[in-house]
Amino acid sequence: MVTFLAGGTGTPKLLSGDEPVFARDSVTVVGNTGDDVELGGLLVCPDLDTVLFDGGGVLDRETWWGIDGDSHETNAELFRLADAAGLEEGPRYLDDDAQTAGREIARWRRFSGIAEFMTIGDRDRAVHITRTSLLDEGHSLTEATRTLADAFDLEIDLLPMSDDPVATIVHTPDGEMHFQEYWVANRAGPRVEGVEFRGAETAEPTPEVEAALADPVVIGPSNPVTSVGPIRSLAGVDAALGETPVVAVSPFCEDEAFSGPVADLMAGTGREPSTAGVAETYGFADAFVFDEADGTDLDRPVVRTDTEIDGPADAERVARACALALAAVGADPDDLGLAVDDPAELDGDDIDTSELPALGGKP
Amino acid sequence: MVTFLAGGTGTPKLLSGDEPVFARDSVTVVGNTGDDVELGGLLVCPDLDTVLFDGGGVLDRETWWGIDGDSHETNAELFRLADAAGLEEGPRYLDDDAQTAGREIARWRRFSGIAEFMTIGDRDRAVHITRTSLLDEGHSLTEATRTLADAFDLEIDLLPMSDDPVATIVHTPDGEMHFQEYWVANRAGPRVEGVEFRGAETAEPTPEVEAALADPVVIGPSNPVTSVGPIRSLAGVDAALGETPVVAVSPFCEDEAFSGPVADLMAGTGREPSTAGVAETYGFADAFVFDEADGTDLDRPVVRTDTEIDGPADAERVARACALALAAVGADPDDLGLAVDDPAELDGDDIDTSELPALGGKP
Repeated sequence: MVTFLAGGTGTPKLLSGDEPVFARDSVTVVGNTGDDVELGGLLVCPDLDTVLFDGGGVLDRETWWGIDGDSHETNAELFRLADAAGLEEGPRYLDDDAQTAGREIARWRRFSGIAEFMTIGDRDRAVHITRTSLLDEGHSLTEATRTLADAFDLEIDLLPMSDDPVATIVHTPDGEMHFQEYWVANRAGPRVEGVEFRGAETAEPTPEVEAALADPVVIGPSNPVTSVGPIRSLAGVDAALGETPVVAVSPFCEDEAFSGPVADLMAGTGREPSTAGVAETYGFADAFVFDEADGTDLDRPVVRTDTEIDGPADAERVARACALALAAVGADPDDLGLAVDDPAELDGDDIDTSELPALGGKP
Repeated sequence: MVTFLAGGTGTPKLLSGDEPVFARDSVTVVGNTGDDVELGGLLVCPDLDTVLFDGGGVLDRETWWGIDGDSHETNAELFRLADAAGLEEGPRYLDDDAQTAGREIARWRRFSGIAEFMTIGDRDRAVHITRTSLLDEGHSLTEATRTLADAFDLEIDLLPMSDDPVATIVHTPDGEMHFQEYWVANRAGPRVEGVEFRGAETAEPTPEVEAALADPVVIGPSNPVTSVGPIRSLAGVDAALGETPVVAVSPFCEDEAFSGPVADLMAGTGREPSTAGVAETYGFADAFVFDEADGTDLDRPVVRTDTEIDGPADAERVARACALALAAVGADPDDLGLAVDDPAELDGDDIDTSELPALGGKP
């Protein structure tokens, strides 16, 4: 068994190989829920859904969110209605009282659905309705996610990080804003002065997540601040990561980010926006996967390969590098659900393992 | 000014003439909200929406609900998800605690959205999202309805009967059920043992409705029990109807109902399922419009015409009959917003006014 911490698109891309390096039924994914919002009364979980839709074979892999080929009739009509009625477009936060009313799990991230500022597809919306209705029927987010995973025939085990609310709030010179306002509405424009995980002080990881963190862990090239940070903000997670083999893939090549607002978010939270900064942020990581062009020198084991993931073959290569690194830092290869008998078979000319401790069976 | 009490399809059909007998900007429609439900977190107001969509020129006039040509991607996907996940189809009531939690106006009628048992179209859904979001932003249902009416360029003034919750509950041998479970899910199958307007004892008509009830009133061929009954259940409404000229169109021809479950609902609430029963139910009505084939003898003024409404010409004919009746029982023709100077011009061979008091200018 192996556990991936996932948020944004980095780790989902790593999981998207056609021929999985880790057998899918051996994989648990702990998904970030700090990005979630309640929009027009529906709990939308973008990071869970990217994994859900990709596992279900319906993800739009151009955008890495939403359902491929989905229509957007409702979303378009919401804009038409708002325009015709003279209602200002959003994001439209509900008022302060409403932020802590209603569904507990939606705290501090409740938006009106008028001129819906996130683009929800019509089939996509059915997922949010079903999830929210399961919550309203008394189920936890973990249970609701399992039900949706069943509906999409997911082979991996997909877990939300918590059944409690945690809202990622970005502090900027324009004031504080939920991550989705910062990212979707403002396209990461405002200067980041800090990031807060509201609710984290009382939120708990679920028992399922705690159990998953006892297995070897892969942190894909997700954003360390807003994709992995909310998971790490939960009590006991960092301690658990310190006790199990962990390999992390840098989302940078030295100080060049592969995608997204990761550099701004690293810098805005006092971190060096680079591979070195990621390594420092992940003090618990036992090994890293760096891009082959990344010359960052580290006092921990590193495996190098081309870490840009633009398709299944890339995903498989980086996953092989992760498996090699995990096996080199203490994970039992027999427990990882590898598709090969000997992890050394995962090695090849496209991966540089010279900085890893020796693998059993490998010279 | 003239006020219509509307529910179901009877009164909306009466309003659907191409050349309105009553100028549209002189018409107020008080809509029944006893049929409303909260479904998957959205407040759905079927009776308001039929008037809203018809006034906006987008109503599906085959079904008399929903938007013409709407797609149903979300609704279809909700069924697919429920089926794939092994979730039983609805109606799925939220639990008793939830029925009185959440949005005040949604009390006693809150359903999960799983396998959404009412067929909500994709553009239709945007209306429910906008309405519900306006409520969540702190507006009343009256205000939200006005905003939607603006978005659809409505010329008439559309008012929900109340900003408070009233839920029409049908009592049957199978137990009590919300009207939408009785009508949509069970197709009016269960035997009606009684009808309750839950919440009516504390709900109030809005000031806008109270003002509208000071004008002459037309009750179209809507169901007296579940379409008009909830409006009448509000404090002061019957008294107001007793003080103003009222004309009602019978939804029966003698004991034959034109459509819907009106006969079962009349019988199940101790009323005679017939025009005579309607006349008895509407003790406050000053005059009636009966079908020309309806021989019911009444000690109040009656105008007769073909009351089956299958298109704009039918709607205009019945509306002319209503105007003639109103003018005959005390409404000031100059205040009705009539399209003609003299109400007698509305008369014709297709309307039998011989049982009406004499109209000014008519032999």
